[in-house]
Amino acid sequence: MTAPSDTYDVIVVGGGISGLSTAKLLKANGLNPVVLEARNRVGGRTYTVQNKQTKWVDLGGAYVGPTQNRILRLANEYGIKTYKVNEKERLVHYIHGKSYPFSGSFPPMWNPIVFLDFNNLFRTLDKMGREIPCEAPWKAPRAEEWDKMSMQQLLNKVCWTSAVRRFATLFVNVNVTSEPHEVSALWFLWYVKQCGGTMRIFSTTNGGQERKFEGGSSQISECMARELGERVKLESPVCSIDQTGHLVLVKTLDNRTYSAKYVVVATPPGLNLKMHFNPELPPLRNQLIHRVPMGSVIKCMVYYKENFWRKRGFCGSMVIEEEGAPIGLTLDDTKPDGSVPAIMGFILARQCRKLCELPKEERLRRICEIYSRVLGTQEALHPVHYEEKNWCEEEYSGGCYTAYFPPGILTQFGRWVLRQPFGKLYFAGTETATEWSGYMEGAVQAGERAAREVLCDMGKLHSSLVWQTEPESLEVPALPFHTTFWERNLPSVGGLLKLIGVSAVLAATAAGLMAYKKGLIAVA
Amino acid sequence: MTAPSDTYDVIVVGGGISGLSTAKLLKANGLNPVVLEARNRVGGRTYTVQNKQTKWVDLGGAYVGPTQNRILRLANEYGIKTYKVNEKERLVHYIHGKSYPFSGSFPPMWNPIVFLDFNNLFRTLDKMGREIPCEAPWKAPRAEEWDKMSMQQLLNKVCWTSAVRRFATLFVNVNVTSEPHEVSALWFLWYVKQCGGTMRIFSTTNGGQERKFEGGSSQISECMARELGERVKLESPVCSIDQTGHLVLVKTLDNRTYSAKYVVVATPPGLNLKMHFNPELPPLRNQLIHRVPMGSVIKCMVYYKENFWRKRGFCGSMVIEEEGAPIGLTLDDTKPDGSVPAIMGFILARQCRKLCELPKEERLRRICEIYSRVLGTQEALHPVHYEEKNWCEEEYSGGCYTAYFPPGILTQFGRWVLRQPFGKLYFAGTETATEWSGYMEGAVQAGERAAREVLCDMGKLHSSLVWQTEPESLEVPALPFHTTFWERNLPSVGGLLKLIGVSAVLAATAAGLMAYKKGLIAVA
Repeated sequence: MTAPSDTYDVIVVGGGISGLSTAKLLKANGLNPVVLEARNRVGGRTYTVQNKQTKWVDLGGAYVGPTQNRILRLANEYGIKTYKVNEKERLVHYIHGKSYPFSGSFPPMWNPIVFLDFNNLFRTLDKMGREIPCEAPWKAPRAEEWDKMSMQQLLNKVCWTSAVRRFATLFVNVNVTSEPHEVSALWFLWYVKQCGGTMRIFSTTNGGQERKFEGGSSQISECMARELGERVKLESPVCSIDQTGHLVLVKTLDNRTYSAKYVVVATPPGLNLKMHFNPELPPLRNQLIHRVPMGSVIKCMVYYKENFWRKRGFCGSMVIEEEGAPIGLTLDDTKPDGSVPAIMGFILARQCRKLCELPKEERLRRICEIYSRVLGTQEALHPVHYEEKNWCEEEYSGGCYTAYFPPGILTQFGRWVLRQPFGKLYFAGTETATEWSGYMEGAVQAGERAAREVLCDMGKLHSSLVWQTEPESLEVPALPFHTTFWERNLPSVGGLLKLIGVSAVLAATAAGLMAYKKGLIAVA
Repeated sequence: MTAPSDTYDVIVVGGGISGLSTAKLLKANGLNPVVLEARNRVGGRTYTVQNKQTKWVDLGGAYVGPTQNRILRLANEYGIKTYKVNEKERLVHYIHGKSYPFSGSFPPMWNPIVFLDFNNLFRTLDKMGREIPCEAPWKAPRAEEWDKMSMQQLLNKVCWTSAVRRFATLFVNVNVTSEPHEVSALWFLWYVKQCGGTMRIFSTTNGGQERKFEGGSSQISECMARELGERVKLESPVCSIDQTGHLVLVKTLDNRTYSAKYVVVATPPGLNLKMHFNPELPPLRNQLIHRVPMGSVIKCMVYYKENFWRKRGFCGSMVIEEEGAPIGLTLDDTKPDGSVPAIMGFILARQCRKLCELPKEERLRRICEIYSRVLGTQEALHPVHYEEKNWCEEEYSGGCYTAYFPPGILTQFGRWVLRQPFGKLYFAGTETATEWSGYMEGAVQAGERAAREVLCDMGKLHSSLVWQTEPESLEVPALPFHTTFWERNLPSVGGLLKLIGVSAVLAATAAGLMAYKKGLIAVA
């Protein structure tokens, strides 16, 4: 009843950027890989749709920036160009029902106490990050302590003002599509650190959102798939992996069996659960894959007849702080030639779960309503087209952008199990990366590393060459972020209060001494 | 290539107590169900092994007690008798390297401040529980607030002494095989509440651990399976559920296809992920099943030649508080006729993950070592036999005893999705129960409820009859727990401090007045 098995050197499970990178590198090294992809398309969490209204639109992973050199190299190889996300005009920070235009990466805080608190928080996040090794966050000196805390607990500890706590919540929502009380502080600090810090991860210019690919990010996967040709099998969800025999046997839902010497699993870790393993995975890995859920996000693109925001002096980036607002962050999504004016917005975490079940039209209505308030014009109420993608509904992604670690899991389960091989099974996927994990860049790093692990096990590569650094992209160089003397040295609110306390004591003492000297106090 | 499909009224996925209860009730109502079980045995998280050394031993779910009337009714129907877990002699509380024998459910706290703190904590847990509806914990008045907190955060808030915080950690470890910082406070409070409160859940006599089944708990599943005969298909892991056609099609790994009007999924919620769904599950359910991991536990049975502990005046129950100790709680596991002396112990949560990868002999050595210290005798160092079961390694359980909700999940995802039908899919499994969820009792409640939901949808049962109460077992009646006046009215440590503060002010005022009256203070 079983189809005859096709034999390969390596079976790659998952045709996203990570799995395709694995197969590409293996093929380049003379091996015979096959890629089994569950969906009827490649690209995984990148998903470019083409149609009349949008020309093309990235409904999944889209943004790239400096230091993401691997994905840039890959795009370059295929002649896929990047363009800068528009940030010429001013950004808007919407808070307490008012819009405040600004320039730079983070909205400025005008209240001096709030400013100190804000400055101290982001300085602290980066400082804590410096104690966390990218490749082994569980080895940080205070790993256990930080892992037992949720980000919410850390924010409660560090922040003095509710303004900064609220902004920090948005910062967590935007970066990892989950809530501060859901994620481990250690994991979040690691996540920000391995993206290059708070400035690099959050910035458009010189940061993770600096650019997009002309024509859409899916092209990278499509080019790799074209190169691999018949080796990529679509609509082939893997349901079992059997490594009890000489070769590993991999079965797909349509009852085909593939066999190979090695298997590279290039899915999000939680989706390993879609497969039945023989022998069973080791106990801690068996439990880990139940403990790394994917974030919650709907990516929403609203199209307008005219680019009215630029005319009003806004670039299209909005940082929206309002409990009821559907969208937390927007970016301009107009094409580089100025055609197809559009605003990209994210419905994030708790908002995503709340708005998930509304009809699409109602979501669009609410989105336009907040855009109209933030940009201060009725023009935002009249879209000409709408595209959205709710990643929570995707069985073969489980959510987007990436998997998160709830408190306690990284130190107890994360250790080796995330990318530790099990028999002839190796693990790729952006979650197993150590730089820009969660991004397309991490997918490439992980995919190529897994390919080299297999080459190494085959004796075709020395183990010292498994992990490789990447030369910097010439087209997209990284600039350092400069902090000012004041940013480095201003006190926290707590520090200020202490300072005031000490100053008061000093001042009183000084005044006392002076008064004494001047004979104003008589000492008996 | 596909085998011809077998058609049934209802396909039940999972041959644990819950799934078998579903099939049994459906069959009793004249329907034609089939049960597809992944393993080569029925029973799921109950697992009785028979051998020369032990006669029989429950390596999975074993304990029953008063108010668990459904599982007791089922056992009674099959003539399976219960016996009381030995608690005649004294229990032992091991703390700071010393053993303190005691009687009752909880170890006594001798330090008066610790006693107040302890009394206040458990009173508070029960009081908070009373605000949580068993069938809809997300409707509790403060559901959101409590769900954002981990149990660790709640304990930090309520407890004044580290002694009580440490004991409470053990209380969480023992009841839900996970750590206080891993679980939502709302979820844990609900869990304890739906078991009848802190006394009912933790007690041996008159509580959840009062009894065991003579011959082992698996017999219940085996009797149901025998009754169902050919309808139970072992070694049939389900890999896909397709409800796009007129009938639901269910495929197993060995490429058999079953079809039916309805499907009842009776697995832990996270194990729904083992199946590929067409159409995909709704977005929130798709995400929920990645967010409900199973606890971590190794059940360890140490066998001795003689029952030396009873001779020393100990019943075999040990409550062990020591960071390095492998075991947190033990119970006597000697057979009711006094033969096969044995001690059952749990390796829980963080200890489980730490000791998971040691060789079995080393775990036994460490267990005997702590038993020897707690019971104060070298006799514990000389076992004659050892059985253990690490539930973390079970692909088709994912862990034991039950699924837990990390902070934030119950209110955002738990709502309807846990047991809300999806098309012709219904959901059983102890996690979907509203009384003794996580226990064998909950499995029966959930299984029978799911069967009645199907009957109701078929028009064979009125919807008001889907949820049914169960008459009390005659053999195992529940006694109320009495609290003393002092337990109800003693202040917390915080309350005491306030009281002292107020008293001090009152005393000072009184003294002042007295002094004034007596002319000791001159008022100008």
